[in-house]
Amino acid sequence: MIRLHIPQPLIPGAAVAPTLDQSRYLTQVMRLKAGDALHVFNGRDGEWRAVVAEVLKKGVILRAEDQVRPQTPPPDVELLMAVVKKAPLEFAVEKATELGVGRIRLVRTRRTTTEHLRLDRLDAIAVESAEQCGRLDVPPVDDPVKLDTLLDSWDATRRLMFCDETGGPDATATLGAFNPPPSGEGDPAQQGGGGSRPEQVSAPSTASRSPSPDGGGSSQPWSILIGPEGGFAPEERERLRALPFAVPVSLGPRILRADTAAVAALTLWQSALGDWSAAAS
Amino acid sequence: MIRLHIPQPLIPGAAVAPTLDQSRYLTQVMRLKAGDALHVFNGRDGEWRAVVAEVLKKGVILRAEDQVRPQTPPPDVELLMAVVKKAPLEFAVEKATELGVGRIRLVRTRRTTTEHLRLDRLDAIAVESAEQCGRLDVPPVDDPVKLDTLLDSWDATRRLMFCDETGGPDATATLGAFNPPPSGEGDPAQQGGGGSRPEQVSAPSTASRSPSPDGGGSSQPWSILIGPEGGFAPEERERLRALPFAVPVSLGPRILRADTAAVAALTLWQSALGDWSAAAS
Repeated sequence: MIRLHIPQPLIPGAAVAPTLDQSRYLTQVMRLKAGDALHVFNGRDGEWRAVVAEVLKKGVILRAEDQVRPQTPPPDVELLMAVVKKAPLEFAVEKATELGVGRIRLVRTRRTTTEHLRLDRLDAIAVESAEQCGRLDVPPVDDPVKLDTLLDSWDATRRLMFCDETGGPDATATLGAFNPPPSGEGDPAQQGGGGSRPEQVSAPSTASRSPSPDGGGSSQPWSILIGPEGGFAPEERERLRALPFAVPVSLGPRILRADTAAVAALTLWQSALGDWSAAAS
Repeated sequence: MIRLHIPQPLIPGAAVAPTLDQSRYLTQVMRLKAGDALHVFNGRDGEWRAVVAEVLKKGVILRAEDQVRPQTPPPDVELLMAVVKKAPLEFAVEKATELGVGRIRLVRTRRTTTEHLRLDRLDAIAVESAEQCGRLDVPPVDDPVKLDTLLDSWDATRRLMFCDETGGPDATATLGAFNPPPSGEGDPAQQGGGGSRPEQVSAPSTASRSPSPDGGGSSQPWSILIGPEGGFAPEERERLRALPFAVPVSLGPRILRADTAAVAALTLWQSALGDWSAAAS
């Protein structure tokens, strides 16, 4: 079933005008004709069945019929992605969207190289990826901000998963400690992986102890920080390690490219604290 | 430090002749001159410091000096990757190499589309990725084989992580059950995620209970099967689910592209049973 992201509000009978590109895709690539059905979503009203009402020169008109899936809030996990070259950055946006990231914030670190950024292109990739993977929203991609600026105004209730390429505690054990089983086992002090800085894996807040509505996962907001190809500067790493809300983790003994690290970190977070375990039932 | 994969045996004083492409890379891109140092590895003798002995028209000659890292065996985890389009397939090979896969076997399933395969290109990507990520070996990329043929001659001691896009048990809990903590807690029946087919998460063999030499992870061989964009055919899924060595897992509620699924699955395996936890110390 074709899925199209559109900005308009969705109510029964609502007329929806896709962009010219979307119209061309529907009529010329997918060969849709008047009366044919597809799905549309806007990130607010869930997923709707719609039909092609009219095929005009200047584009098609869709009519929303009925809701097929209610809107569900995604886990509150952000990807703080250091600006890297075009290909890995576009890749990271595409994959992070598939993996259910809530928001992508581009970050400039001391070792970030200046790249020509096409935010409109990154937005388009996020939309296409959201349409393809079945999610009901599109993660916004924010303009780059300096890492230091971001940390200066940090909301201390938001955990920061800091992927330290110089090594750190085991990621699965460390993250798992923030979402202990109902049995009550899983004292972070024990599950922290026995790695460095156990105090960073201190007892999760009460919020994170109570399972989220979807039957599992963290109800606490998280961000995942991925550094540039050159890694973090020593002074950046020192500051990050000293932050009470930072949770340093290791992504293994090999050197991962920035885009690989983004996919791996988001995967581990979703599996430990996100909506992946809910999918088991 | 430049890392170069070369086929020759490495002993002190050994003369090493890189390929013409490698020679051009060293002299023209990296501007190395006689006497400059680099690292070389061949997948058998560990990592060695070498120096540029001679710069000739037909390429450079290197001299192996001394071993800087001993060879360590990678975890025995294979990626069984359905043949997909060129870009995602090359991407999967690059990322799987970074993530420490031991071998990549291309697989043809019922819904695999015929693609023009350039195995030499995939090999080159694996080499480049191995040089970049710091591993001491290069995973071989095997010619495509039919999935049914592969399963007909399967070694039953090798577990098959089967990423079922129609849903399955939580991956982290399921895999974690094969590597219980020394405390003895972690009966697979309890940790199986409570998802479907708990009998597929039957008690791990004694082998997998005893931690591997690297201080953690599974000593049991594993393969990770990733299906094509079109997913597995119903009869394929039925056969896979009935296999005693198959371990079905879910990769979350969204539809992942094949290359994304490969990276996510390998990440979860490394974190639960591979060499990532060893990196914590």
